[in-house]
Amino acid sequence: MKFELTILGNTSPFPSKGRLPTSQILNINERLYLIDCGEGTQIRMNELGIKRMKIDHIFISHLHGDHYYGLFGLLGSYRVSRRTQPLHIHCPEGLKELIEFEAKISYAGEFMFPLHFHTTNAKKAEKILDNKDLEVSTIPLRHGEIPTTGFLFREKTGERKMIKSKIKEYNIPFQKIPAIKKGGFFKLPNGKVIKNTELTLAPPPAKTYAFCSDTAYFTGLIPFIKNVDLLYHEATFNAEDGVDAGKKGHSSTLEAAKIAKKGKVKKLIIGHFSTRYRDLEALADESRTIFENTEVAEEKKTFVIA
Amino acid sequence: MKFELTILGNTSPFPSKGRLPTSQILNINERLYLIDCGEGTQIRMNELGIKRMKIDHIFISHLHGDHYYGLFGLLGSYRVSRRTQPLHIHCPEGLKELIEFEAKISYAGEFMFPLHFHTTNAKKAEKILDNKDLEVSTIPLRHGEIPTTGFLFREKTGERKMIKSKIKEYNIPFQKIPAIKKGGFFKLPNGKVIKNTELTLAPPPAKTYAFCSDTAYFTGLIPFIKNVDLLYHEATFNAEDGVDAGKKGHSSTLEAAKIAKKGKVKKLIIGHFSTRYRDLEALADESRTIFENTEVAEEKKTFVIA
Repeated sequence: MKFELTILGNTSPFPSKGRLPTSQILNINERLYLIDCGEGTQIRMNELGIKRMKIDHIFISHLHGDHYYGLFGLLGSYRVSRRTQPLHIHCPEGLKELIEFEAKISYAGEFMFPLHFHTTNAKKAEKILDNKDLEVSTIPLRHGEIPTTGFLFREKTGERKMIKSKIKEYNIPFQKIPAIKKGGFFKLPNGKVIKNTELTLAPPPAKTYAFCSDTAYFTGLIPFIKNVDLLYHEATFNAEDGVDAGKKGHSSTLEAAKIAKKGKVKKLIIGHFSTRYRDLEALADESRTIFENTEVAEEKKTFVIA
Repeated sequence: MKFELTILGNTSPFPSKGRLPTSQILNINERLYLIDCGEGTQIRMNELGIKRMKIDHIFISHLHGDHYYGLFGLLGSYRVSRRTQPLHIHCPEGLKELIEFEAKISYAGEFMFPLHFHTTNAKKAEKILDNKDLEVSTIPLRHGEIPTTGFLFREKTGERKMIKSKIKEYNIPFQKIPAIKKGGFFKLPNGKVIKNTELTLAPPPAKTYAFCSDTAYFTGLIPFIKNVDLLYHEATFNAEDGVDAGKKGHSSTLEAAKIAKKGKVKKLIIGHFSTRYRDLEALADESRTIFENTEVAEEKKTFVIA
């Protein structure tokens, strides 16, 4: 199943020349999940040819503007392009009222599509989405006083895989195969039971992506991101500037790498860089001194989780 | 005095590939006046190297999102870059409350600079700004039920210009010159009065710019834009699609040109084009069949009023 992350923006706290605030698209099985929606999100989507109508779920980590100001325009576009399918926004309290107030003063009336707001709880991790392709849970973050959550995306493991030679060997009828793929046994005409493990192979392990922005360094985060395939962790500051990043509710390159190492993740991508930094590879180099498999969450780049 | 208009966005109703919604910068004597602030305004300003700190006044025609969604990010940038000088926003009722609500849910607290909202009245023209360089008045527009105004910018005429040869001829002391430039006479030692018109030349006529977006065609607009140097008039639709543009609160290329012609303006620029149109010159060609001196309000282009 396709599981690809495209970075739309990696910058903070405002757009700088050619760079945009936080926004990411997770493509799972050709449905798009939008993670944060900083200013210019749909402009960048236009640039990359990403179809906004493929998005049904939007996840907003917190209500600092560099993580959601692009939402106004995106919703406006859905309105004028006559979207009809439901849209779900998972976000902290307050955004629903803001969007409703904005709609009121625009004289635009009701949205013509069902728009569902789901309030996140920054105090504890909760499962907030469960569909055929994936489960999404919140990750409580520490970003000063403003309620902030990360999001953990876990692919649904597919069905077990039939071993083709066994179909012939036991003369298994076609109609029995779906149940076996779901874990069932097969009974031979003579009554003998063939266990599922003899008939099928385990599906590939579920792919996982953890999005952590914005947050101070804290080891309480580790259980939530343990062993994930891909961890996005903010690294607003380099090692020198970020000595007291935590006081500002942010992390340094070294702190992001420490979390990745302690969490034994497969790969770390860092982002949410202060506009002061131009050489982003130098930031990743700092992280690599602690966690080798680090990359810059480079804008417009797609990370494929295979 | 410099009087230059730069188009940041000319598109409606949402950003399309490489194009942005309505936003313009009027540079008068090196102070910048922002007219509408569609999504991506500060991103385009970054691209063009326009300094946001040179803006003290923002004019919002109406509260459809394609005319102000860029304001959230711009104000956010002022906040984080620690602006201290006052900012004035001239806009319809409702925007102040929206911005205040947004600030509240962001936990950002008060703006550290004085932020003044001035409510426009879409029912009648009013002078809304008068400083050393210019006067600005609203222009009531007809854009469906939503309160909408255009803006008329009129340069303050400069002082009269001293005829240098007269300074020598009448031996005019240096200290007397400012008063003469303001229109005063000069008395010779023998008591003879030299009239101002003999000593000075009239200043060049005041430059004027009228911004009209969005509006249906209506001839009641003409008195407000009469004889201006530059008229921006929306032309959302081409002639064929815009037969009933007025019903949608918009104008066609031909209607914009009719207003320009009847108003005897010097130059017309058209914009607010529907995203469906790619060949914008073809739209200007339609207008030129009625009003020859028409140009596309091309994005990133600067129109100099000499």
